[in-house]
Amino acid sequence: MTHPGSAQPVRIGIVGLGTVGSGVVRLLVDSADHITRHAGRPIEVAAAVVRDPTKERDCPLPAVQVSTDIRVISRDPSITLAALLVGGLEPARSMMVELLENGKDVVTANKALLAEHGPELFELARRRGRSIAFEAAVAGGIPIVAAIGECLAANRIESIRGILNGTSNFILTRMEEDGSSYSEALALAQAKGFAEADPSMDVDGTDATQKLAILSHLAFGVWVPWKEIPRTGIDTVDIDLIHYAGELGYRIRLVAVARRSDGRLAMRVAPALVKIGTPLAETRGAYNAVSIVGDAVGRMFFHGLGAGQMPTASAVVADIIDTVVGRTAITFRTTGVLSEDTPAARVAGVDASERHFLRIRVTDRPGVLARITGILGEHGISIASVIQHDPIDGANRPAAGGSTVPDVSLVIMTHSCPSSSVHNALVSIDQCDAVRGRSDCLGVLDE
Amino acid sequence: MTHPGSAQPVRIGIVGLGTVGSGVVRLLVDSADHITRHAGRPIEVAAAVVRDPTKERDCPLPAVQVSTDIRVISRDPSITLAALLVGGLEPARSMMVELLENGKDVVTANKALLAEHGPELFELARRRGRSIAFEAAVAGGIPIVAAIGECLAANRIESIRGILNGTSNFILTRMEEDGSSYSEALALAQAKGFAEADPSMDVDGTDATQKLAILSHLAFGVWVPWKEIPRTGIDTVDIDLIHYAGELGYRIRLVAVARRSDGRLAMRVAPALVKIGTPLAETRGAYNAVSIVGDAVGRMFFHGLGAGQMPTASAVVADIIDTVVGRTAITFRTTGVLSEDTPAARVAGVDASERHFLRIRVTDRPGVLARITGILGEHGISIASVIQHDPIDGANRPAAGGSTVPDVSLVIMTHSCPSSSVHNALVSIDQCDAVRGRSDCLGVLDE
Repeated sequence: MTHPGSAQPVRIGIVGLGTVGSGVVRLLVDSADHITRHAGRPIEVAAAVVRDPTKERDCPLPAVQVSTDIRVISRDPSITLAALLVGGLEPARSMMVELLENGKDVVTANKALLAEHGPELFELARRRGRSIAFEAAVAGGIPIVAAIGECLAANRIESIRGILNGTSNFILTRMEEDGSSYSEALALAQAKGFAEADPSMDVDGTDATQKLAILSHLAFGVWVPWKEIPRTGIDTVDIDLIHYAGELGYRIRLVAVARRSDGRLAMRVAPALVKIGTPLAETRGAYNAVSIVGDAVGRMFFHGLGAGQMPTASAVVADIIDTVVGRTAITFRTTGVLSEDTPAARVAGVDASERHFLRIRVTDRPGVLARITGILGEHGISIASVIQHDPIDGANRPAAGGSTVPDVSLVIMTHSCPSSSVHNALVSIDQCDAVRGRSDCLGVLDE
Repeated sequence: MTHPGSAQPVRIGIVGLGTVGSGVVRLLVDSADHITRHAGRPIEVAAAVVRDPTKERDCPLPAVQVSTDIRVISRDPSITLAALLVGGLEPARSMMVELLENGKDVVTANKALLAEHGPELFELARRRGRSIAFEAAVAGGIPIVAAIGECLAANRIESIRGILNGTSNFILTRMEEDGSSYSEALALAQAKGFAEADPSMDVDGTDATQKLAILSHLAFGVWVPWKEIPRTGIDTVDIDLIHYAGELGYRIRLVAVARRSDGRLAMRVAPALVKIGTPLAETRGAYNAVSIVGDAVGRMFFHGLGAGQMPTASAVVADIIDTVVGRTAITFRTTGVLSEDTPAARVAGVDASERHFLRIRVTDRPGVLARITGILGEHGISIASVIQHDPIDGANRPAAGGSTVPDVSLVIMTHSCPSSSVHNALVSIDQCDAVRGRSDCLGVLDE
C-alpha cells in the first residue's frame, strides 16, 4: 500500500467562505488524516475567493490566498478543483463559467444555479473535459445524488417523495411541537442559522422545487424546468391547520413528489398531511427525508440532516474526494447527466386519487354545512370526517351583546377522490356568500 | 455523446443461478437499455457456472454457456468480470481465488466468505490488480457499503446501529402482528423464500454478525473477526416476550450495534426492545435499516429491502456497472479496504448504561418478588416498572383440585444501569430456588 500522506497534495480553491465554505475548510483541516487516506493524497486549500476579504472567518486559513478575484483560482494552473459555495445565480454563474473555461473541476452546493442553468453549465463542463459534482445541492448530508446516479443505476425509478427543505421542516416542527406561530418559528429558524436573512425561497417552496427538479433529472433522465412544477409554500400554513391535522392523526410537511404517470411526470411541491407514525411524519426539525421506489429495489428511504454547516460540508468534501480520485469524472461521463440530448420532461400536476383535507372558513349560520357538503356531493366527493369547533378566531367573536355572526372553520377530510374534482368543487364553494376568503386544500399521504 | 449501445459489450460470468443469480440475469436482460446507458456499453452474460446444469432456471439464458466448471469463466480471456453468487465458504472461496488468480474482477453477495476470508481474498485481489465489490453482501438493496466507503468519507464514524437480517425481522414482525408462534413464523418465512431451508445462520444471529463485521471494517478502518462479536439470535425470543414488550410500548428487533468506546469497539448483535415510533421499531418484514452517526454529517438513517431476489440483484448489478466503468477499481484502491495493514479491532461487549428488560420465570409463592427486587437493589439497579400477570403457561396451571404451584413470568423494566450489573444480578437471581430456568435480559433502545 502506498502512503497517501507522502503523495503530492491536491491544491483546491474555495469560492465563498460563508457557513458552508468555512465548514468545508474546517473539515478539510480537522479531519485531514482521515480525508487524505480516502483521497489517496492530502487536500490543501490554496486560495479562497470572497466578497469581503477583511471579514473574520470562523475557520483556519493557514497559507491561503484570500481574494475577491475568481482568477486567483481559475488562472492558477496548480489548482485543479474549485468548490463553488456561494448561493444565488450571479455572480455564481459567471464564476462557474470562468472556472470551467479554465479547466477546473467544480464541486458545488448551489441548487438554484443548477436548476436554472444546469444544461448550459454541464454542457460546458463536458466540452472542456471537466466535471461538476453536486451532492451537497440536494438534501444536505443525505447521499441521494450518488444513490440515484450510481447505487440504484440498475433500476427504473418509479417515484420520488421527499422533504427537501430543512428550514420549512424546522418551522413546521416548531409550530407543531411548541404551538409557536409561523412568524415565531421563522424567527427561531433564523436565530439558529437554518433560515437565511431573506427566507422567501425556503418558505415559498422554491428551494424544494429546485431540488426536486435536479433529483427528477437524475431519476427519470429528463430535464425539468423547475418553474413548471406546481408549487405551494409553507407560508400558507397557520397554527390552526396544524392543530386540525393533529386532531385527525396527521402532521403537516412540505412534501415534494414526482412520479411517472402515462408518459408524463406528475410533480408537486406543497404542504401535505402525513400520517403520524409514517417516516415523513417522523422527519423533524432540520432533517430531510427522501423515499424512492425502483422497479428492482422496491422502496428505499433515506433520512438525515438536510441543512446546517457540517452536514452540508460533509457532502461537499465527499464530492471533493470523489473528484480527486477520479470517480466523479467517470460518473459524469457515463450517466450523461444534463447533457444536451436529455429530453425535456412533460410535467403534469399530481391528479392523484387521494384523500383531501379542506379548511373552509364560513359564517356560522344555518344551512351552510348543507350547502357545502351538497357541492362536494355534486362533484362526486364523499366525506370521511368533519370537524367544526366553536368560533376559533377571537377577533371574530361577537362582542358581549353584539350581533356579529362569528366565523368558524369547517374542516373536512374527504374519501379518496381526484384532486381535480376537489379543486373544481372548491371554486364553487369559495363563491358561496357564507364562505370567507379562499379555502385551503391539502393532499393526504397515508403511507 | 457516444452511443453506448454501439460499443463493444462487456462479457461477464455468473457463478450460481439460484435466487440472486437468476435475478441478476433477469435484471441484466429486462433492463438492458437502461443498464447499457449507465455502464457506457452493453453487459452480456457469456457463461454461467452451476452445480446442476440440467436444472431449469427462472431466467432467460440466451447464448449462455452453462457449465459446472469455474474455468469456463476464469480461463476465458474475453470475460473480465465474474459475479460470485453462491453462499457458504466452499467451494465459494476456491472459486473466488481461481477467478482472481486469473485476472477477473469479482462482484459478490457472499458476506460469510468476506467475514471469514476477507483479508486474504482482498490481498490477493490487490496483488493481481483486480477488485472485489460487495454492496449486495450487506443490507440487500440499501447502498450502505457505498454510503460508508464513499459518501461519508469525510466523516469519522462514531457508531452504527442496524437491523441487518431480513429473515429474523420478518419472523419477529409476523409474531408481533399475527401472534404467530416462532415456528409458524419461521415456516412462513421459508414458504415466502426469505429463509433458507436451513435457517440457522439467520436466526442464531450469525448472518447479522458477519454483516456487522464488514460494515465495522468500512466504518472504523479495523478488521473485526466476526466470532469475537457477542451474539444472541432471535431463536431465544418467544411470543410472550413480544407481548410483554408491547405492553410497555416496545417492539423486539434483532439489533446490531458497533460504536467507538475508549479505543475499543463496543459491539453486540442481540434482540433488543425498540420503542414504538422510532425508525428501528417501524422497520417491518423483510426490510433492513441502518443508522450511522458521523462527526460531520450527524445521524443518517437508511431503510430498504434487505432480502429477496430483486433488491439483492439491484445491488449486484450496481456493483457490476461500477466495476465496468472503473469506479470500483478506484474505491478499492483508495479506501485500502481490508488490506494487510488494517489493524485488528479491539472488540468489547456493549456495557452501555441503558435500560434493561428482564423476564424471570418464578414459582408463584410469597416472598419471591421481594427476594428478586432485593438482589437487583444490591447490585444498584432500580426498577422502572414490573408486570406480573396470572399464570401464563396453560401447561403449568394446577389441575382442578391439584396442588401444583403455578409458574409465572415476572417482567421488569429497569432504569438506566450498566449491562454488567444486570448480568451479575441475574447470575444470583437464577440461583434462587423459586426461579425456573434461565432468565431473559434484553437491552432497551429508547431512540
